[in-house]
Amino acid sequence: MSSNNDAPAAGKLWGGRFTGGTDPIMVQYNESIYFDRVFYSQDIRGSISYARANTKTGLLTEREFAEIERGFKQVLKEWQDGVFDIKPGIDEDIHTANERRLGEIIGKEIAGKLHTGRSRNDQVATDMRLWLRDQLEQLESYLIAFLKVIAARAEKEIEHVMPGYTHLQRAQPIRWSHWMLLYGSFFASDLERLREVRARINKSPLGCGALAGNPFNIDREAIAKELGFDGLIMNSMAGVGDRDFVVETMQWGTMLMTHLSRWAEDLIIYSTGEFSFVKLADTYSTGSSLMPQKKNPDSLELIRGKSGRAFGHMTGLMMSIKGIPSTYNKDLQESVEPLLDHIKTVGDSVQIATGVLSTLNILPENMLKSLSPDMLATDLADYLVRKGVPFRETHHISGRVVALAENEGKPMDTLTFEQLQGVDNRFEKDVLGVFDYQKSVEMRSAKGGTSRGAVLEQIEAIKKTLAAN
Amino acid sequence: MSSNNDAPAAGKLWGGRFTGGTDPIMVQYNESIYFDRVFYSQDIRGSISYARANTKTGLLTEREFAEIERGFKQVLKEWQDGVFDIKPGIDEDIHTANERRLGEIIGKEIAGKLHTGRSRNDQVATDMRLWLRDQLEQLESYLIAFLKVIAARAEKEIEHVMPGYTHLQRAQPIRWSHWMLLYGSFFASDLERLREVRARINKSPLGCGALAGNPFNIDREAIAKELGFDGLIMNSMAGVGDRDFVVETMQWGTMLMTHLSRWAEDLIIYSTGEFSFVKLADTYSTGSSLMPQKKNPDSLELIRGKSGRAFGHMTGLMMSIKGIPSTYNKDLQESVEPLLDHIKTVGDSVQIATGVLSTLNILPENMLKSLSPDMLATDLADYLVRKGVPFRETHHISGRVVALAENEGKPMDTLTFEQLQGVDNRFEKDVLGVFDYQKSVEMRSAKGGTSRGAVLEQIEAIKKTLAAN
Amino acid sequence: MSSNNDAPAAGKLWGGRFTGGTDPIMVQYNESIYFDRVFYSQDIRGSISYARANTKTGLLTEREFAEIERGFKQVLKEWQDGVFDIKPGIDEDIHTANERRLGEIIGKEIAGKLHTGRSRNDQVATDMRLWLRDQLEQLESYLIAFLKVIAARAEKEIEHVMPGYTHLQRAQPIRWSHWMLLYGSFFASDLERLREVRARINKSPLGCGALAGNPFNIDREAIAKELGFDGLIMNSMAGVGDRDFVVETMQWGTMLMTHLSRWAEDLIIYSTGEFSFVKLADTYSTGSSLMPQKKNPDSLELIRGKSGRAFGHMTGLMMSIKGIPSTYNKDLQESVEPLLDHIKTVGDSVQIATGVLSTLNILPENMLKSLSPDMLATDLADYLVRKGVPFRETHHISGRVVALAENEGKPMDTLTFEQLQGVDNRFEKDVLGVFDYQKSVEMRSAKGGTSRGAVLEQIEAIKKTLAAN
Amino acid sequence: MSSNNDAPAAGKLWGGRFTGGTDPIMVQYNESIYFDRVFYSQDIRGSISYARANTKTGLLTEREFAEIERGFKQVLKEWQDGVFDIKPGIDEDIHTANERRLGEIIGKEIAGKLHTGRSRNDQVATDMRLWLRDQLEQLESYLIAFLKVIAARAEKEIEHVMPGYTHLQRAQPIRWSHWMLLYGSFFASDLERLREVRARINKSPLGCGALAGNPFNIDREAIAKELGFDGLIMNSMAGVGDRDFVVETMQWGTMLMTHLSRWAEDLIIYSTGEFSFVKLADTYSTGSSLMPQKKNPDSLELIRGKSGRAFGHMTGLMMSIKGIPSTYNKDLQESVEPLLDHIKTVGDSVQIATGVLSTLNILPENMLKSLSPDMLATDLADYLVRKGVPFRETHHISGRVVALAENEGKPMDTLTFEQLQGVDNRFEKDVLGVFDYQKSVEMRSAKGGTSRGAVLEQIEAIKKTLAAN
Repeated sequence: MSSNNDAPAAGKLWGGRFTGGTDPIMVQYNESIYFDRVFYSQDIRGSISYARANTKTGLLTEREFAEIERGFKQVLKEWQDGVFDIKPGIDEDIHTANERRLGEIIGKEIAGKLHTGRSRNDQVATDMRLWLRDQLEQLESYLIAFLKVIAARAEKEIEHVMPGYTHLQRAQPIRWSHWMLLYGSFFASDLERLREVRARINKSPLGCGALAGNPFNIDREAIAKELGFDGLIMNSMAGVGDRDFVVETMQWGTMLMTHLSRWAEDLIIYSTGEFSFVKLADTYSTGSSLMPQKKNPDSLELIRGKSGRAFGHMTGLMMSIKGIPSTYNKDLQESVEPLLDHIKTVGDSVQIATGVLSTLNILPENMLKSLSPDMLATDLADYLVRKGVPFRETHHISGRVVALAENEGKPMDTLTFEQLQGVDNRFEKDVLGVFDYQKSVEMRSAKGGTSRGAVLEQIEAIKKTLAAN
Repeated sequence: MSSNNDAPAAGKLWGGRFTGGTDPIMVQYNESIYFDRVFYSQDIRGSISYARANTKTGLLTEREFAEIERGFKQVLKEWQDGVFDIKPGIDEDIHTANERRLGEIIGKEIAGKLHTGRSRNDQVATDMRLWLRDQLEQLESYLIAFLKVIAARAEKEIEHVMPGYTHLQRAQPIRWSHWMLLYGSFFASDLERLREVRARINKSPLGCGALAGNPFNIDREAIAKELGFDGLIMNSMAGVGDRDFVVETMQWGTMLMTHLSRWAEDLIIYSTGEFSFVKLADTYSTGSSLMPQKKNPDSLELIRGKSGRAFGHMTGLMMSIKGIPSTYNKDLQESVEPLLDHIKTVGDSVQIATGVLSTLNILPENMLKSLSPDMLATDLADYLVRKGVPFRETHHISGRVVALAENEGKPMDTLTFEQLQGVDNRFEKDVLGVFDYQKSVEMRSAKGGTSRGAVLEQIEAIKKTLAAN
Repeated sequence: MSSNNDAPAAGKLWGGRFTGGTDPIMVQYNESIYFDRVFYSQDIRGSISYARANTKTGLLTEREFAEIERGFKQVLKEWQDGVFDIKPGIDEDIHTANERRLGEIIGKEIAGKLHTGRSRNDQVATDMRLWLRDQLEQLESYLIAFLKVIAARAEKEIEHVMPGYTHLQRAQPIRWSHWMLLYGSFFASDLERLREVRARINKSPLGCGALAGNPFNIDREAIAKELGFDGLIMNSMAGVGDRDFVVETMQWGTMLMTHLSRWAEDLIIYSTGEFSFVKLADTYSTGSSLMPQKKNPDSLELIRGKSGRAFGHMTGLMMSIKGIPSTYNKDLQESVEPLLDHIKTVGDSVQIATGVLSTLNILPENMLKSLSPDMLATDLADYLVRKGVPFRETHHISGRVVALAENEGKPMDTLTFEQLQGVDNRFEKDVLGVFDYQKSVEMRSAKGGTSRGAVLEQIEAIKKTLAAN
Repeated sequence: MSSNNDAPAAGKLWGGRFTGGTDPIMVQYNESIYFDRVFYSQDIRGSISYARANTKTGLLTEREFAEIERGFKQVLKEWQDGVFDIKPGIDEDIHTANERRLGEIIGKEIAGKLHTGRSRNDQVATDMRLWLRDQLEQLESYLIAFLKVIAARAEKEIEHVMPGYTHLQRAQPIRWSHWMLLYGSFFASDLERLREVRARINKSPLGCGALAGNPFNIDREAIAKELGFDGLIMNSMAGVGDRDFVVETMQWGTMLMTHLSRWAEDLIIYSTGEFSFVKLADTYSTGSSLMPQKKNPDSLELIRGKSGRAFGHMTGLMMSIKGIPSTYNKDLQESVEPLLDHIKTVGDSVQIATGVLSTLNILPENMLKSLSPDMLATDLADYLVRKGVPFRETHHISGRVVALAENEGKPMDTLTFEQLQGVDNRFEKDVLGVFDYQKSVEMRSAKGGTSRGAVLEQIEAIKKTLAAN
């Protein structure tokens, strides 16, 4: 015998918490209105386009369409004015809320025709794509603003030389601009990717129905065009069951945040007392409640920390999607909140980074002080290479010079010419000219290097990327 | 020359968005009051204990302490009554807000003594641990309620037999209760882990100062005792720089959610039209806006989907923490919001699962219908094993019987005795007794098996776990 | 006083395991030769191009270059013939190994000139990009082969109708081909992304030196052209410190694997005894060591499981990279092994999926059997829509018909015309024509739908994607 | 009509790559022998115990058991001697291989009885748990060795004072030992967790069969006891379908690696030219192929990088497991390789860290040099607190002193008494005593602080943890 009645019988041992016919936690667990209402205008816009298309096929009369449009304009205004009244427990999502309200305004007879051949499945996919497309345009503008600051500072401050690091050990002198442009190249790459992702997002799922398509021969291309989409999702099951566009956005955003995190890490280290290359503007620092002398780079630490948050959005959604069956499953609802937070996190972070860099004080004299003559050991080796000595040998010779300086307890550039000759007699008088940081950076003139010309070329490349699109 | 002034000069090319002395986005990026206010009572409780301890060391007089306690009682009431007035841009976090308000009530002279030797670093760690400890107690009660439903149903519905699956292919008959108890054993394990995690969380960081400890010889153990902590964090830098307790909670929560996800996956499959073993109560299902016949297991899909969300919290935080330097870095602020959402997600999900199982309708006749005689092929092989034939041989013989039935196009249990003997003449008349699902499950009587006794023993084990602690 | 000597003094209390001057675990922890040798040919190819460019600048004579080329040809042959003799503890990576061997063949005098102005930092980045570019071409061919199978089957088997599901509940009839094309659209999207990623990878870092560029004015563009790169990494620090191209590849691969995982999940469910829509070829199934009747879809489960593995590569590397300082840090070595495994996992999985689909047996009569008349409830509602009734009303009417059938305990399509009229008198005689699955799928003729024409159009779209590039 | 034959017909359009009856890629995709052979001894040990238990129930005679034991001893020896001959394509896993070889040695008649009532499902779970249990014991010993080095150094080098940082900004003076003990407390916590995890792993699944238990009433407890397990998995479906013990191990290992990563990050920063607090032994550093002067902390960077790798194992497996149906699914095979690599990664990393710390040279004079008087600003505020001034006021006063020193361009401790009095006239002559770093650390004598006594107490706590168990 099947125990096939819905309400748990009074006598059931396992009744637990749940006794009545409804579960308030379930209502709240299920409803999305408190976050998907952010799509209110997209939802309305999509509905109007959809209704217009159904007018063309004769499902709606011109008058009915006009009523729908009029009604939605009022609904839109209510949202914009902050007076839309959500009915708790009834308006479970933005689609339901908007249609419910429309019916109150224009009557249920006409409003009831709106949803013909449509499903919330294709509706939410449409709303999300429209919203996200616009957000990415906003993010693009933030990223461009950031890149402009990078390019401008790199151009203006091209004179300053600082230590370049590998393994966080002082390696070779570089220009301060070259460091900025390193990240410039990362962010320019993010910009390029952003444009590719946006193109893939901007496809219309509207007209896919619940999963199998539209039975009233609706003109999906006309709808897409009206909504500013660049094309259609070409399989109805894909249209409703795909959240790749969210995943791809988050993959993009996480990559960008990783770049910001590395950038922040560098600046946090450069702003320690021990390095002291840069000093953050007060706006982007905070003090300590206990230690009066403290000035902490909170803005940069938050950027670095939020890179984890952005990553969590991405991994979480990828796990939610992994292995679920095709088409729409309610699991996909879990894509919305992380997306909203992701976009905000990325947008805020790019803007904060722009603010930090715009107001950053640099201390070029400390950068200079941190340069040490042994950072020119490669230049010394290269000097002998130019005299025809094989590099592997010059590398050892230079190493011996480094060791000599260390043993003598004095900087390498204060060794005498005789001492150098003692290490290798192919050193000639002009060797002392090697110990010049400006000369060192200027020597690296091959493309991508630290010479003035090579740096200016990078700035041009970034400007070109900005102009593209 | 250093460009060492804070406000970006008017003429700077890279001024970008940021021109004035403050950045409203930074204020909002930095402040935590809009989420950490959830700790208001813990923050107050900790402050009172801290003040009491400072009274013992003479830093505060009894009268001052009494004032502080009186003031905080009022602050607490304001929060509880929902009338606490957060000062935007000033109350950047709950600690600042509470102390600011305290000062307004009892005067700054006394309130200004509260923070002596203390830092927001040890304060927030204390607040979070207190809050989380209490939340985990709540979660423990949810988990116990769920396990009680499992145990009760398993006991009551022990008669029903259903197909057991491996690789989602029908494998051997099992009891429906055995399936429930599989997950019961997972959740019991979660309960055990929960208790271990809680013990590790419930340690006091208060008195660690900013990082180096307390210079006024405060009695940390007395504070810990008053706050119900089980011990101290024994290194002051660990006290302020550790968010392991959050990570560990999320690791625990994600494991639990993975269990819930697998449980939900099984039930989603069992509630398809093709399986039809169970039917969700209406409360835990929803319909379709387009398809009138649909009844969808939204509750279970949300559980499955939210397992990704919970995982995202964990991975995100682990990335935020990875590789940051020791002690407090602002990155750690990113632990709070994910934690709040994680705890809510886990708590809601356990409760929803309890509701689903409490009200689940089972269709035992469909379970029976889905059993197929070839699921007894192992029993057939075992029959010959009991006659002394090596298992590897009986496995092949039984396989030939399966093939014969397939070729004959009829169920294995309708083969005649002669047909069975045709396959192997060691089959005797009693072989036909093998084709009995109830007998099959009852045969598996070793511990952990499907026999009635073995199943009842499992129920006892779960009850014992519940009683522990 | 500084304890500044390297060997741990005998008497040190903390000597622990480590007593001598070397640590064999460290040697093995550090060396990469046992995995990066896979790049042997890329490493040689890059070195030859680099030497040629240095010949143009006069650093090498033509004769020296010829020797280098001759030597490397022999080294290459030794690798290809499997006779290259790795010197344990000396050949720590492929670059060291190749140069060491070159020196043995052509003498150290000339071989020692090879590394001039170059660093292992730009060398490994070059090797990885060259290798990965070629691997992605291979993966592209696998993906194309898979898509061809999808397109071919979709075309050939277009007649078969099966249930379409949302929430894994029977929703509306679809064509079997439509299901295949759903995934076809996902994989076509993966193909598109693959081409974008490949373009970004195929940039040359060679000539970036250790971090600051090349001081001998090497012609990076000539090198890039010779190696088949499409352009240059334009900042030398980016050239050596960027593993984005690996992350991006893994993001791409993980997305693809998620698609394969959903595809596999569907097929696993469709191959259960309860669904029985498809039957895997024996090659892609395995039996049970215990249960003679079992046939398990191991291939599909492995695909689903390996989607986690691919994801682990991506998340692991993203965490390794997060927050490290700019340029090369040894952490980046951790990108290599995961990449190798990732590419193999993805490549194998696409090929297995192709094999599974190529040999999959479908059971169209079971698909038909699983269709149920209530799946036409939307069609019934649409019928009334065509008579002018608002959809919201028809949805309720159709729902009442579903309920009536359920209460009567018979399929909806066996209700009499009178019974239907009893629910709503706008039903006319032609309503009985609604209960036709073929008609239902054919009705959905808007783009992306299930009609024959709409399905054929999807096949064309996929073919067009294959031809692109 | 069903297209129900297995070999793809010649004419099938979609034949693709796959034409014959087998797919070599599938063989390799499916087989596990090349990694699960690591369990050879566990597999044999489990089989012998299982056979012994079946002898007690009469399924095997004593003579048969003796033969099985004799045979397995030979198989074991073959593995140990490296002469076991894996049959490609036949020995798909270690269980098959061992049983195949056993049959060759003792004959199939007896060997064929071994697998009675057992499945590879419970066999592999047993092998993995046995192996992992032993590995964790090994890891425990590594961790203990590391903690001993920390405790010993902390005790010996307790005199040295260094800057303590928050936000990587100099905050307050601490003892160098206090820094070591911070991580000591993290690793002690890892040790505690390790013991909890190990206890949960050490449960026996043997006797669970394929999923439904054992039908021959085998004495599972006797088996468990013989194998050194602490108890049983109490549900047969859990026994075969659970890989939580792997996930939990990886959660543990990832937490440990995160600790190591933060530890490494600190040391990498402390070993920069700018900080220069520590100098790694040559064994744990490497040079540069290009820059003669470089000495890079590769060991620490690898630890930091491998924390990502360990994390990738965990997240990957969690994704593989998420949402799969109950009991054994082939997806679970994907737990093995990541586990092997995880254990190796963690074990190597702890040992490398131990080596690094054992041989680390510290430069206490540089630590001292990096201390700056403004780090005593809190002590200055505390000075006034002791005179009865509210902390909030003293915090401001001390802040003004910091500003005065900055404006004067001289260290705070060189301000004259008059200057201090100028800021606040409650400063008395003894204020100058505040500017003493040793005194500052000694003042923080509350538990967990930096005073000698508080530090020694921490060392005791660690020693106690080591002794536990």
